[in-house]
Amino acid sequence: MSDNAASVHPKVWAAMQAADAPDAPYDGDGLSRALDAAFADLFGRPCAVVWVATGTAANCLALAALVPPHGGVICHREAHVETDECGAPAFYTHGAKLILADGEGAKLTPATLDAAIGQIRKDVHQVQPHAVTITQASEYGLCYRPAELAALIGRVRDHGLALHMDGARFANAVAFLGCSAAEACGPVDALTFGCVKNGGMGAEALVLFDPALADHVRIRRKRAGHLQSKGRYLAAQILAMVDGGLWLDNARAANAAAAEIGAAAAGRLIHPVEANEVFVRLSAAERAALRQQGFAFYDWGDDAARFVTAWNARALDVAALSRAVAAL
Amino acid sequence: MSDNAASVHPKVWAAMQAADAPDAPYDGDGLSRALDAAFADLFGRPCAVVWVATGTAANCLALAALVPPHGGVICHREAHVETDECGAPAFYTHGAKLILADGEGAKLTPATLDAAIGQIRKDVHQVQPHAVTITQASEYGLCYRPAELAALIGRVRDHGLALHMDGARFANAVAFLGCSAAEACGPVDALTFGCVKNGGMGAEALVLFDPALADHVRIRRKRAGHLQSKGRYLAAQILAMVDGGLWLDNARAANAAAAEIGAAAAGRLIHPVEANEVFVRLSAAERAALRQQGFAFYDWGDDAARFVTAWNARALDVAALSRAVAAL
Amino acid sequence: MSDNAASVHPKVWAAMQAADAPDAPYDGDGLSRALDAAFADLFGRPCAVVWVATGTAANCLALAALVPPHGGVICHREAHVETDECGAPAFYTHGAKLILADGEGAKLTPATLDAAIGQIRKDVHQVQPHAVTITQASEYGLCYRPAELAALIGRVRDHGLALHMDGARFANAVAFLGCSAAEACGPVDALTFGCVKNGGMGAEALVLFDPALADHVRIRRKRAGHLQSKGRYLAAQILAMVDGGLWLDNARAANAAAAEIGAAAAGRLIHPVEANEVFVRLSAAERAALRQQGFAFYDWGDDAARFVTAWNARALDVAALSRAVAAL
Amino acid sequence: MSDNAASVHPKVWAAMQAADAPDAPYDGDGLSRALDAAFADLFGRPCAVVWVATGTAANCLALAALVPPHGGVICHREAHVETDECGAPAFYTHGAKLILADGEGAKLTPATLDAAIGQIRKDVHQVQPHAVTITQASEYGLCYRPAELAALIGRVRDHGLALHMDGARFANAVAFLGCSAAEACGPVDALTFGCVKNGGMGAEALVLFDPALADHVRIRRKRAGHLQSKGRYLAAQILAMVDGGLWLDNARAANAAAAEIGAAAAGRLIHPVEANEVFVRLSAAERAALRQQGFAFYDWGDDAARFVTAWNARALDVAALSRAVAAL
Repeated sequence: MSDNAASVHPKVWAAMQAADAPDAPYDGDGLSRALDAAFADLFGRPCAVVWVATGTAANCLALAALVPPHGGVICHREAHVETDECGAPAFYTHGAKLILADGEGAKLTPATLDAAIGQIRKDVHQVQPHAVTITQASEYGLCYRPAELAALIGRVRDHGLALHMDGARFANAVAFLGCSAAEACGPVDALTFGCVKNGGMGAEALVLFDPALADHVRIRRKRAGHLQSKGRYLAAQILAMVDGGLWLDNARAANAAAAEIGAAAAGRLIHPVEANEVFVRLSAAERAALRQQGFAFYDWGDDAARFVTAWNARALDVAALSRAVAAL
Repeated sequence: MSDNAASVHPKVWAAMQAADAPDAPYDGDGLSRALDAAFADLFGRPCAVVWVATGTAANCLALAALVPPHGGVICHREAHVETDECGAPAFYTHGAKLILADGEGAKLTPATLDAAIGQIRKDVHQVQPHAVTITQASEYGLCYRPAELAALIGRVRDHGLALHMDGARFANAVAFLGCSAAEACGPVDALTFGCVKNGGMGAEALVLFDPALADHVRIRRKRAGHLQSKGRYLAAQILAMVDGGLWLDNARAANAAAAEIGAAAAGRLIHPVEANEVFVRLSAAERAALRQQGFAFYDWGDDAARFVTAWNARALDVAALSRAVAAL
Repeated sequence: MSDNAASVHPKVWAAMQAADAPDAPYDGDGLSRALDAAFADLFGRPCAVVWVATGTAANCLALAALVPPHGGVICHREAHVETDECGAPAFYTHGAKLILADGEGAKLTPATLDAAIGQIRKDVHQVQPHAVTITQASEYGLCYRPAELAALIGRVRDHGLALHMDGARFANAVAFLGCSAAEACGPVDALTFGCVKNGGMGAEALVLFDPALADHVRIRRKRAGHLQSKGRYLAAQILAMVDGGLWLDNARAANAAAAEIGAAAAGRLIHPVEANEVFVRLSAAERAALRQQGFAFYDWGDDAARFVTAWNARALDVAALSRAVAAL
Repeated sequence: MSDNAASVHPKVWAAMQAADAPDAPYDGDGLSRALDAAFADLFGRPCAVVWVATGTAANCLALAALVPPHGGVICHREAHVETDECGAPAFYTHGAKLILADGEGAKLTPATLDAAIGQIRKDVHQVQPHAVTITQASEYGLCYRPAELAALIGRVRDHGLALHMDGARFANAVAFLGCSAAEACGPVDALTFGCVKNGGMGAEALVLFDPALADHVRIRRKRAGHLQSKGRYLAAQILAMVDGGLWLDNARAANAAAAEIGAAAAGRLIHPVEANEVFVRLSAAERAALRQQGFAFYDWGDDAARFVTAWNARALDVAALSRAVAAL
């Protein structure tokens, strides 16, 4: 019951195997070179796409391109970059500071952004912000609506800041919002377009809407040891996700499973269920009972659990978990 | 005609597919946890093994564990870390200095090591060496014999330095030397055991012969965005290489192809052919002629070419190239 | 009315001028070499002392010696290293994370230390603490009593962490506490012993109670461009402060001035006055009135002011300010 | 007999003491704010001037403003940044690579610059140059003539690179060349204008001919712990050097002393004597003989010595050394 370690989707396997014939190394192969056009189609505007193996690398390469070592990045205090990347942002940016902001459900708002910036004296003794990073869907599975996003991005730009979106579960957000990829993303500078949690094996797409950033990111990717010599296998995974809408199909399946579990746990939900994560109030005894029945999930603090559904959540498993939760 | 972009070996594919069932994320899965024992068997001494996607990441994580930011690493002036990693060692070590040494065929000797160290004043104004990194087989495809290695490592230890071995083509070295893995490696602290150039897809094994280093490297791997969530697919590749000696079979095939080409180019060789690289004196016109016949290779300076053979060099291709070179 | 830009004490001037004859460059001169013994006398245990020009450099060199780039440092969320050093700790430590803890008056307690550590999962996804830094006197001029300090340090050691003390106003703390330097410091690993705010010009003493740290710090100081070639002028300043107890005389004078102002502002104090800082609730109108009378101070939020007294606060000025505050 | 540890000039002392009255902290004081205009006068073009305590800090702050972490800086292989700053350039630039070039007397030429650049493949596997740093006078005391400089800078700009000049002994160069400061410097982006070796105590002027660089450098200076709170004492030193031409008077005195020694050692000179350094072939026995007579100098390899003269080289001492050398 996790998207992070789920199986690879058969279409992704097929695409990787189809890439087996030798081609140019690194990202000079035909598949890698097809990425820019595929994503320009998807987002309806020009972009450059750089593959990397992990979301952490994608996020941090983006931040390193947007923020100087002496600058700061505003993020939610529960953002993945702050809580789960072991200091990778500081490593990649050479010490830029994460400036923590608040917001319900791990989403920033114009007001919480202003508050974070308002605390900073504009002098050389305090780190000045250069960029903002937001997560779509958020760490609690909540999605920025296009209008919310537009308002937030407007404020980001009023402050003269760059903007990155961590889209580890971007597909789940788009599936939930029912809007276009472009609407779910807005005019950000860089987007981490997640594939691994959505049926991929080991490839994420870093989408850069400013080509100058791409040159920078490509050098930094090599410098970080992330330029794989057989890059065509990564490109193949990403293209398989985008081709024919597999990314949305998989996300819809995961979201549907989460919705079913959420409905069963209606009175216990900590957050509304939007994407593929369900946060449920459960006592230690209840969690033990579920685990005894064979269900796997993360503890979330002392009295809750986090369930994450994947593209391949089997109907039977989901129904069984839903019944078990409802029966508690 | 390159090992860097060759196809993935069928046994590697099979192992990856066998790993498709969900397991614990990151490196908590059964395959990742089997690596230490597999390599302890191979090298006859305890070790901890950390997978990463690229040789650059493996090399630089090792150096970062062995050298403080204010220290230096002695390497050959033609070593991959110096010439082809885009400053990755400086990134990972936070600015440690590569101290360049000489040596025939990109191999260090006790004397060239002493010379490099002898130039350094022992004061706070000059960067002091903390480690040495050597390459087996070297950037020119030459192999350190066990006795050479023992002498060199002895000198490294006399100077109180740590030692890393870049084994991007370690399999080719062992295949050539006809010795054990342990003999080809010697008592180094850390070894980058290459798989990608030898039939893998995107996994290298960093072998750490001191467990304390492994804890350090595991944190740094995460911090560098190299801790893939579906790590079992990387572990599967590495285990496939080691199981049943595939790594040696593949290397022998590549070496044999190189030897055949080397024999055909006997009078033109810049270096003896030991592993799977052949450096051949060829004028611009000769190179153009070969390329017109469909052969692919790197220019090497103005009057030479580098041929690299892979595990799947087909007999026909090799024979054709050998004939073509001989006919020039 | 600030200690940060006050004049240099005449005895410090005299010591600098007495150092004018050429001597060995860097820290090879007689004065620099006398520092270790002078501070060993003061603290009653062996130590190595490294001069640097600023408290920020001293703090950060200490942290860099105590914490690896991938580690964390626990500090109060209002500590100078967090709020006023422009990311210098991240620069010097190569990206180590400042882990923020709470505590009344900018002082940590065993309980707030435990709380900060308790939030950290012990895995590679979160930055693990390696050290703690505390400030004596704190950013609000409050002093750790020897017993408080002993309890806190005990807890620090229970967690297996190193400990640094930022003593930018250590002299003021000792003067207030009426104890020995050793008691006011406790068994920390490194102490920034401030001189600049206490009548010096541009020299702070970084006191290292573990000689191995000193070797490390000396290299890093050079690497940070802080090894001045005419270091004897810095050593002279520090020795002048320590010789004959000038450091305590100056601190007592500053504390006495603060106490006088504090007494006049008794009903308005935000924190008790212990060292040489006075935080006074004052409306905007009141602050404007004081400024019109020629008094200089920092605004502290919207409805308070911070007064800092120096070694040379003249009796007349202090009395005048005290009268003016009392008259509001 | 060294400029690095010589006494402070009386006019510098006087200026420091005149700065003793409290003023705004950091660089907000009147003296610090007078630097830009003073240097704009000297160089005949607008500039921003930032004081720091050491030449290493000045050089490295400049490089950090000109070169990204993934870039390279071309310098002579005997440049101070390469040989004597303990990796400070890598620290300040976050790992940018020093790319070594050749040239007689530690001076670069257009040809050696081209050669260094010509060896670099233009791909992401090799570090690409972003800037050049040259030294005026060079590490061997040799001076770039204005025409040489113009040709070199033209080539630097042809390659699209930024340019820094290390002028630790810039005054000695101007004194030798007999040209204006502007002519001796040329249209560089940043100049380290040395004062410490020329009668100062602990202040160098980093002159930035592009104001945007100054904002960047001021932040980085704070982040490096080099923003001293009583900065007026540093500004005072620098202004004292520039006012009334003290910098040139001191340099002329030092150069004259070097010239006298050079004349006495005419047949033994390794380099012509231009600035204030004299490199003399001397056997070990001869060096021992000189040392027995009380002369101090550095060994230079196995069979030479380096004499450096300071602003206060006394006529008697210089004559005595000259006689002693001539008598060998």
